[in-house]
Amino acid sequence: MKHSPLVQGLIDAFTCLPGVGPRSAQRMAYHLLERNREGGGHLAEALTSAMEGVRQCSRCRNFAERDLCPICLDSRRDQSQVCVVSSPADVLAIEHSGEYRGRYFVLLGQLSPIDGMGPRQIGLDQLEQQIQAGDISEIILATGTTVEGEATAHYILEMVHGTAVTVSRIAQGVPMGGDLEFVDGATLAHAFRGRRPV
Amino acid sequence: MKHSPLVQGLIDAFTCLPGVGPRSAQRMAYHLLERNREGGGHLAEALTSAMEGVRQCSRCRNFAERDLCPICLDSRRDQSQVCVVSSPADVLAIEHSGEYRGRYFVLLGQLSPIDGMGPRQIGLDQLEQQIQAGDISEIILATGTTVEGEATAHYILEMVHGTAVTVSRIAQGVPMGGDLEFVDGATLAHAFRGRRPV
Repeated sequence: MKHSPLVQGLIDAFTCLPGVGPRSAQRMAYHLLERNREGGGHLAEALTSAMEGVRQCSRCRNFAERDLCPICLDSRRDQSQVCVVSSPADVLAIEHSGEYRGRYFVLLGQLSPIDGMGPRQIGLDQLEQQIQAGDISEIILATGTTVEGEATAHYILEMVHGTAVTVSRIAQGVPMGGDLEFVDGATLAHAFRGRRPV
Repeated sequence: MKHSPLVQGLIDAFTCLPGVGPRSAQRMAYHLLERNREGGGHLAEALTSAMEGVRQCSRCRNFAERDLCPICLDSRRDQSQVCVVSSPADVLAIEHSGEYRGRYFVLLGQLSPIDGMGPRQIGLDQLEQQIQAGDISEIILATGTTVEGEATAHYILEMVHGTAVTVSRIAQGVPMGGDLEFVDGATLAHAFRGRRPV
């Protein structure tokens, strides 16, 4: 049996969500149509408002509803300390840790020339301007440990070279509270190389 | 860190979907905002169209975009044979089996007075009218094997009593292609009680 066009359209549209295949999409569409049309209408409104209203902070490229995001506007935070991350979700994870009191620079991607992601696409020209303007005293690299993350970190390191900006990278090693047996080999190797005297 | 109001609104709205908790909802919202705003806008449109445009078939209560659904309009199907199911998803499952060539009656629920689901709420008055009008020669009950499903089946059986309508119930037993060891006890007991000579 084929779905009617509107139902099929809704099922297809749901598959744009991460982790949602045709079967889950069908379950979602049927659930809303059968039991929660109000919720479906509400979701449509929230989507429209967010897709139109959520822009990028002109300073850090994170999600913002005005020109600057709340973190860039917060005068209690050290605005000269900048943590460079790949995505807004990374900002969220770091904020949840409660450890960091500087601001961010969100690349929204990583250097990957083969996918058309050059320095400009991930806002590195903008970061360079901020460095040249003397707005930044310290950069903390938190771009992830993939090949692209390493390449991005390396590029920023080159960019900072010859300026007064301090650069550090968040520590790589075994996660807290985990048994060693569940930690992968590459992470363990990193943890050994990065061992510190106690 | 708090999300901005529009982002938080979108995350909250996503939790109306089945199987989507706060964390998946956040992942969905961030995914669309970061990577697929077009998809998000498209989903909003599909939701609005479907929530407004998908109505109920006036004859069988299944999803329909016009007065009657495609199955009720299909003259090659036996319109006097009616399979009673709880939800549109059940129709889909039966249609996928390719076995059935009659039409359906979709209750959109099951008898459950404690939840305010009486006969009228699940359209049984409408089914009774169709029986009285002589439109139905056979009813096949496929309302599921829960207490509510049984109660619903029993109610319909009483309703048909004294008319010329034949009533049957889809067979309960062990599923095809499954090892017996994985079949639950209640199903096995049913399968034994319903054994047939070969």
